[in-house]
Amino acid sequence: MRARRTGRRPGNPDTREAILDAARAAFAERGFDAASIRAIAAAAGVDPALVHHYFGTKEELFRATVAIPLDPAELLPAVLAAGPDQVGERLVRTFLKVWDSPVGAAGLALLRSAVNNEWTARLLREFLVTQVLRRVVEHLDVDPAERALRGGLVASQLAGLIMTRYVIRIEPIASAAPDTLVTAIGPTLQRYLTAPLPPPNPS
Amino acid sequence: MRARRTGRRPGNPDTREAILDAARAAFAERGFDAASIRAIAAAAGVDPALVHHYFGTKEELFRATVAIPLDPAELLPAVLAAGPDQVGERLVRTFLKVWDSPVGAAGLALLRSAVNNEWTARLLREFLVTQVLRRVVEHLDVDPAERALRGGLVASQLAGLIMTRYVIRIEPIASAAPDTLVTAIGPTLQRYLTAPLPPPNPS
Repeated sequence: MRARRTGRRPGNPDTREAILDAARAAFAERGFDAASIRAIAAAAGVDPALVHHYFGTKEELFRATVAIPLDPAELLPAVLAAGPDQVGERLVRTFLKVWDSPVGAAGLALLRSAVNNEWTARLLREFLVTQVLRRVVEHLDVDPAERALRGGLVASQLAGLIMTRYVIRIEPIASAAPDTLVTAIGPTLQRYLTAPLPPPNPS
Repeated sequence: MRARRTGRRPGNPDTREAILDAARAAFAERGFDAASIRAIAAAAGVDPALVHHYFGTKEELFRATVAIPLDPAELLPAVLAAGPDQVGERLVRTFLKVWDSPVGAAGLALLRSAVNNEWTARLLREFLVTQVLRRVVEHLDVDPAERALRGGLVASQLAGLIMTRYVIRIEPIASAAPDTLVTAIGPTLQRYLTAPLPPPNPS
């Protein structure tokens, strides 16, 4: 009987890297939804079962490719707990808690890479859309046809909060207490998520 | 004694433009760090010494490439023309017009470099704060003590709009008609600029 390649250990480093490389390419080129474990395994020259063995679910594999050591789904209950009227403020508060923690360094590394690399930008986009934004908006009682725009608007404010607080460091945003930012920016996200979206107003 | 190429004048306008065009392209494609005077000079068909003669250091050349197409003072009248209640929408509209024009490439080069280079981040921050935000808020009838926070909040939304529309390209933000974004985001800037800023609300 031939020996298993790696037993229960986290796996052969070369095989892990080959899978991660194939996964990055698949997620960037085809998007999270269309990328399949089967195709990723084929590209890496391994059995699909080995991909699951090393990395778990497709979501977990995706998080490994972008090196984000946090499942955004775990934060969702805290964001939704106080009811739909509080989602905006809760979202800012939770977001800042994550970015002010060691996880923020991983997020910043991803952002820095994405800004100068189209391929990483696609991975970041897929991550934000499928792992963060979609999960927030699908829990809200809004027209499904508006969800993508609402999610995109939320992303536009949160991405800029990251840029001004952690990258460009514009004061007083960079040094502001979380409460100040929650109070100022929470209502923006609340409006983007649940208020009526006015039709375009040509002028 | 041999004649100086250009004397003390600012230089041949066509040559200056050729150098600036090459510099913008180089900075946009490779970022500030990787772009070289030598390569910019080669692309413009001039001697590297001439680039230094016209523009000084690479830093000065870089400031020239972003300062000329993005002189915000020229845009301010259009932003303020419709009165203080329209500043939010006018600001988004003017901002998008600039970023959707060829000038956007220069802004994107500055942003890309700023994300990975602390020195350029400072340059971008100084540019945003002193040339853009301060000029907008100083024309509004708001408490001077609140101006920096209001300007920073505006920056947080506009920087994120750039990120989601032009860098990460999240749909439908990336492809949205300007009117859609003006209608959705204008009220956010209006609130940041002129609405009462609620005190922090600890929870």
